[in-house]
Amino acid sequence: MSSVNYTQFYSFNLCFPAEFVAHVEINRPTKLNAFNQDTWRQLREIFHLISVDPNVRIVILSGAGDRAFTSGLELSPELFAMLNGGLDEERARFMTRRIIQDFQRSISAIENCSKPVIGVAHGVAFGLAVDILSATDIRICTSDVRFSVKEVDIGLAADIGTLQRLPKVVNSLSWCKDVVYTARVFGAQEAHAQGFVSKVVESKQKGLEVGLELAKVIATKSPVAVQGSKHLINYSRDRTIQEGLDYTATWNALAIGKDMKDAVAATLSKSKPQYGKL
Amino acid sequence: MSSVNYTQFYSFNLCFPAEFVAHVEINRPTKLNAFNQDTWRQLREIFHLISVDPNVRIVILSGAGDRAFTSGLELSPELFAMLNGGLDEERARFMTRRIIQDFQRSISAIENCSKPVIGVAHGVAFGLAVDILSATDIRICTSDVRFSVKEVDIGLAADIGTLQRLPKVVNSLSWCKDVVYTARVFGAQEAHAQGFVSKVVESKQKGLEVGLELAKVIATKSPVAVQGSKHLINYSRDRTIQEGLDYTATWNALAIGKDMKDAVAATLSKSKPQYGKL
Amino acid sequence: MSSVNYTQFYSFNLCFPAEFVAHVEINRPTKLNAFNQDTWRQLREIFHLISVDPNVRIVILSGAGDRAFTSGLELSPELFAMLNGGLDEERARFMTRRIIQDFQRSISAIENCSKPVIGVAHGVAFGLAVDILSATDIRICTSDVRFSVKEVDIGLAADIGTLQRLPKVVNSLSWCKDVVYTARVFGAQEAHAQGFVSKVVESKQKGLEVGLELAKVIATKSPVAVQGSKHLINYSRDRTIQEGLDYTATWNALAIGKDMKDAVAATLSKSKPQYGKL
Amino acid sequence: MSSVNYTQFYSFNLCFPAEFVAHVEINRPTKLNAFNQDTWRQLREIFHLISVDPNVRIVILSGAGDRAFTSGLELSPELFAMLNGGLDEERARFMTRRIIQDFQRSISAIENCSKPVIGVAHGVAFGLAVDILSATDIRICTSDVRFSVKEVDIGLAADIGTLQRLPKVVNSLSWCKDVVYTARVFGAQEAHAQGFVSKVVESKQKGLEVGLELAKVIATKSPVAVQGSKHLINYSRDRTIQEGLDYTATWNALAIGKDMKDAVAATLSKSKPQYGKL
Amino acid sequence: MSSVNYTQFYSFNLCFPAEFVAHVEINRPTKLNAFNQDTWRQLREIFHLISVDPNVRIVILSGAGDRAFTSGLELSPELFAMLNGGLDEERARFMTRRIIQDFQRSISAIENCSKPVIGVAHGVAFGLAVDILSATDIRICTSDVRFSVKEVDIGLAADIGTLQRLPKVVNSLSWCKDVVYTARVFGAQEAHAQGFVSKVVESKQKGLEVGLELAKVIATKSPVAVQGSKHLINYSRDRTIQEGLDYTATWNALAIGKDMKDAVAATLSKSKPQYGKL
Amino acid sequence: MSSVNYTQFYSFNLCFPAEFVAHVEINRPTKLNAFNQDTWRQLREIFHLISVDPNVRIVILSGAGDRAFTSGLELSPELFAMLNGGLDEERARFMTRRIIQDFQRSISAIENCSKPVIGVAHGVAFGLAVDILSATDIRICTSDVRFSVKEVDIGLAADIGTLQRLPKVVNSLSWCKDVVYTARVFGAQEAHAQGFVSKVVESKQKGLEVGLELAKVIATKSPVAVQGSKHLINYSRDRTIQEGLDYTATWNALAIGKDMKDAVAATLSKSKPQYGKL
Repeated sequence: MSSVNYTQFYSFNLCFPAEFVAHVEINRPTKLNAFNQDTWRQLREIFHLISVDPNVRIVILSGAGDRAFTSGLELSPELFAMLNGGLDEERARFMTRRIIQDFQRSISAIENCSKPVIGVAHGVAFGLAVDILSATDIRICTSDVRFSVKEVDIGLAADIGTLQRLPKVVNSLSWCKDVVYTARVFGAQEAHAQGFVSKVVESKQKGLEVGLELAKVIATKSPVAVQGSKHLINYSRDRTIQEGLDYTATWNALAIGKDMKDAVAATLSKSKPQYGKL
Repeated sequence: MSSVNYTQFYSFNLCFPAEFVAHVEINRPTKLNAFNQDTWRQLREIFHLISVDPNVRIVILSGAGDRAFTSGLELSPELFAMLNGGLDEERARFMTRRIIQDFQRSISAIENCSKPVIGVAHGVAFGLAVDILSATDIRICTSDVRFSVKEVDIGLAADIGTLQRLPKVVNSLSWCKDVVYTARVFGAQEAHAQGFVSKVVESKQKGLEVGLELAKVIATKSPVAVQGSKHLINYSRDRTIQEGLDYTATWNALAIGKDMKDAVAATLSKSKPQYGKL
Repeated sequence: MSSVNYTQFYSFNLCFPAEFVAHVEINRPTKLNAFNQDTWRQLREIFHLISVDPNVRIVILSGAGDRAFTSGLELSPELFAMLNGGLDEERARFMTRRIIQDFQRSISAIENCSKPVIGVAHGVAFGLAVDILSATDIRICTSDVRFSVKEVDIGLAADIGTLQRLPKVVNSLSWCKDVVYTARVFGAQEAHAQGFVSKVVESKQKGLEVGLELAKVIATKSPVAVQGSKHLINYSRDRTIQEGLDYTATWNALAIGKDMKDAVAATLSKSKPQYGKL
Repeated sequence: MSSVNYTQFYSFNLCFPAEFVAHVEINRPTKLNAFNQDTWRQLREIFHLISVDPNVRIVILSGAGDRAFTSGLELSPELFAMLNGGLDEERARFMTRRIIQDFQRSISAIENCSKPVIGVAHGVAFGLAVDILSATDIRICTSDVRFSVKEVDIGLAADIGTLQRLPKVVNSLSWCKDVVYTARVFGAQEAHAQGFVSKVVESKQKGLEVGLELAKVIATKSPVAVQGSKHLINYSRDRTIQEGLDYTATWNALAIGKDMKDAVAATLSKSKPQYGKL
Repeated sequence: MSSVNYTQFYSFNLCFPAEFVAHVEINRPTKLNAFNQDTWRQLREIFHLISVDPNVRIVILSGAGDRAFTSGLELSPELFAMLNGGLDEERARFMTRRIIQDFQRSISAIENCSKPVIGVAHGVAFGLAVDILSATDIRICTSDVRFSVKEVDIGLAADIGTLQRLPKVVNSLSWCKDVVYTARVFGAQEAHAQGFVSKVVESKQKGLEVGLELAKVIATKSPVAVQGSKHLINYSRDRTIQEGLDYTATWNALAIGKDMKDAVAATLSKSKPQYGKL
Repeated sequence: MSSVNYTQFYSFNLCFPAEFVAHVEINRPTKLNAFNQDTWRQLREIFHLISVDPNVRIVILSGAGDRAFTSGLELSPELFAMLNGGLDEERARFMTRRIIQDFQRSISAIENCSKPVIGVAHGVAFGLAVDILSATDIRICTSDVRFSVKEVDIGLAADIGTLQRLPKVVNSLSWCKDVVYTARVFGAQEAHAQGFVSKVVESKQKGLEVGLELAKVIATKSPVAVQGSKHLINYSRDRTIQEGLDYTATWNALAIGKDMKDAVAATLSKSKPQYGKL
């Protein structure tokens, strides 16, 4: 359905289950969808491509297999070699900093993707899973999901997004610090009560159906309006109200036009608006 | 009860149902209280006047009639003419930007009003309604209210405040993006669960009563303390903790004085404090 | 259990109920644990010492006696003399500003303490109590607690932290402004629904037990990871996502090392990791 | 030459000495062009009108008479009454704050005017003169000019712009603090060495000629380009490089179009480009 | 001298005139070193490679041929096609925004390069030349250089860095706005007086010699110290003093170590320190 | 002349050469006024005391002896022990970070001192000397001064203020990076041309005389005005124009009063105003 070539991403499945809807599936089920360096770089490239693919308006992100969204980072010998390459102490630390920044860019690719992303989490969703999901726009989970901000248990503070984004997407900073400091597992009900997910469903299958229904609704809307809304909410979250308003005035002076006319015309003619690709 | 002349605002009713309490009512019930350019400019002027009227300490904002708080922006031929005045493309966009900024200033007048504002929402509360309510301080709604962040359905991203303020007054960014991207209608229960409103009542009449009781309580408090609190919460919301603290120390060095003495004296004499006008 | 000398703090009890756990108890029960200038300065010094005491990894903060966490600031003649020392008007205000800043530094010492702090609130928790608790990391309360943002009732806007921190740790800004403008008392259930506390327990005794259990769990974790997490969450709360990420990459390039190796080694050997002091 | 009605501004002369060039002259020469409340409010209104007047692309601002650009604020009995209206101490201070903000808005109207402003200073240029000139875009002075940041000599810190803008338009913060703390008079040579003015001329007449020549050059340029440049320089001055770049990309996506085509076409045809009004 | 493969960059010459010194030469002399899309993308990739090449500690950037550093952007038919691809108005603007951002990233690659860059400008240095040079660390020019912020003359505000960076590297904002609004040519003397360049030399050959001497000095210094200094100056330029200090403390806790020991040891043994690669 | 006890600061001489003028002299001439940990802590305490000493309105800071303002940090065995205490790698780095922050607070005490500070530099002024001088308000130097941002030569980036403050007090970022990356010595003329110092004098004796004359002038001015000006310039330097203006309005509403009346009364009576202590 898309003219972009996504075939080189062997760690992921991509399909287009409805018009303008992309489904990205983390596809290392025998590893509980754990991420190695290849996986995180492919993730970034996929979201870079989707961001500019005019045939995609909305994305669903989930994990293959029954057991896990993702169990997190694969603690491979390669990773340790990468962190510890025979350099003197400070030079090794400069290298560590670069690796963290590279990894951060992969997670941020989801947030920076111009199209909204719906995360559907099930089973094990540890460490990196929370980093990734915090960077999606809308989160759904199954009742059997097991979340954990796992990083403290491997002796480090989370460094690719959870500590930045999780406090801004949930209710209670007291709760947030509790799960971060203890690395304890929490389930669907707690995630929903805290606003981390906006819906809990009984199974992964159901989660994908609900996600797809939501995606189809968003896919019928003006992409100028939806992509503008994502951009402006994220921009404004990080700034004063006044800065958000000023930027929005400039943005909409750029963006208002044909889609507004199409929307109004469709309303007047009681038809369904058809918007151009973006 | 006020010496300020508010009579020229034909799109609004103003009354003073209790000492120091102003009630602003959007008064275009036959249009579902929709806003045209006159309406939004009058709104701004009213809140500018209230902001410096020493006889007002607290404001209630609601909509006239049974059917709507407001249905949003009136999509009039004048509006389209304004957006599209025969100029070349970029000059038209400069003009659009000015109009958006003008409109934003009207909504921000509620937030910038030195006195707190209690919003009471009922019936249809679409588009602009959410922009306005997000700019009030405390929100109450009726059980029949129907909210919608409607802008996506007319082909544009919301540009007069919702995308800036709504994420900062509700619980869950996942939920917030859901209602923004889909423009779906949500009701009182969802608004309450998300913290958008802090109370749900059975009818508009009851909402106005509850709002008035709350307003009367606030009207008995030191206006130096209440107006300072509004100013400092809004200031600090947009800044680091430390910047908020620094500013607050300077502010209170200015503001502490007679009202504190009056409060302490009243406590000691077991009387009710009487504060000066502000 | 600690080699630091904490004995000079007569307004507080300090004990070490478990390895790496400090318990700080406000100890003026006959005054409902009200704070005078000595109390607030001792609070600051205690948290400065704990911040660099390698034998402490986690702190519990509570109030002595059955009746109060703290009733707030003691409105003593000394305080009024301090605010009003025969200077001309502006010079007195410069002095007031210095006193507020001095007081703010005491409350901020809790937030700036490198170790996390668990607040356990019971009974009367007015004014200053909310300032202090908002600066802790994790909050627990008893079912009989009575919170109030009391400052408006003494004629001033809260100026030592509540207006900065409370809106960032609870759900609903509408609710927050309600309790600030009215100074009304609210209880455990409301505090929990708003996310101000993450757990409600039946008694102070139970609260201390629950707090201690939580503290013991956190005390077994890598202090590099936990202290890093506290620092990075607080840093990132006040900044854009991108600034938080950039800082985190630099921080973790400094912090990753031995604790990660210890954690991984313990996992491989199925033993409990033992981390160095910090 | 302009269709806007500027006639009501008796404290100022307005004329249009060349196409698209407005000349605003402070016209109270018998008072050394001192400002009272009327004067500063008229200043604001004039610049608000010019900002949206499509017949103006560039403004020259100077003072009438031989003796002064402006001697600063007129210390009239009305001013003191305004600052001191029989209110209690804190309420009087709230009022003072409003008056300062009102006055600040007048000076900021020059900076916020969408068209660039060239200041031509001569003779006495004290206090308010530096506030005003710091808010212009390009500054020229005569060799006889006498500048002074006078505020310290009347017992207050400058509060309408000098302390914000002067350090950002001159070279040396050491020099800047010297002239602020001492209120000493400095002349054209020192102002030029510090970059406060970019040109010194021998007489007021010459200053107006040089200013007009410069204005005529700017008036031939694309107003989309010039006004965009002013907006973007001012925006970026206050922000990180990256924020400035991000905003600029959005701005130019809005602004690039017809003027660029007109400019390129003129280049190809070796004619002088004619741009639309803005 | 470097193990990195730089051979694919046909628009540039790269050589390594001394140990740890790279020389990047814009190599389209027959086009006055004008940039097309290929050129700007190669520029970015070269600086990305240099940024992590341990054999480079300092970079010289200059233009090939006698006539120009660079004449700016090549106004090719491809560029216009790119800006104008048959899309509706708003979609074309979204595309323009992406192109500007892509171009900005190329210029920012110089600033973000971890190694300092010395710019040597001669001849024509128009438009893009000023954007590029403003992003270098140290600027030298020949006496025959002709600078111009040319963008206004093609009907647009400069959008790839000049408006952000030039005001932060020169003395006088008045002067800066003068050259931006008029697009007038200015020479070496004016550039030096304004601090845009820190040295003027008589010829391009001399400029390269002086640049090389300076580069050799910097190449003998600790790369941890030099790269840290560049990073920290740029970081701090954009932030408050306190934020710069806080970040610097964290950074140096990471970076201090072996190079400091090497430096001190060399001082004690009166030898020349040899630092590790970075 | 001052009632504050300054006697315990053996590394410094303090005297009061004129009413309201304090002179702080770094007094380790046999060590070229190098700083050890005691020295830097005493510096901080002195400026904390001066900041609240009502008998001081202005401070002069210089170095004892003929040879140096200060040669910088004393590289003592204690310092290395402090940096390297037998801890594991990361814990040692946490400790380094604390030491840097402690040191930074000493330098910042000069900037945060409520009274302006005039630095008089002579002879050797290396490393720490530039950090300290950048934190003063007004800088004077002798013609024999030898400045160097020395840190790169001991293998580290400057970390106690130079990289934050120097670029904000001099003209040319190109020049600034040149002296930082090369650690080269520069003299009085270059320092003056760059605006680092605002005056060059022939000898240390002359520098102290000139500094004292300037100090006496400032000491006659309203301390409310002068201290407010220092606070507001520093506050505004780090923020947007608008934030600076907003804060200034609040500040002056607090600060305007008696000193303004005293100033106006003195003007009317043609006497010299006498201001209260602050």
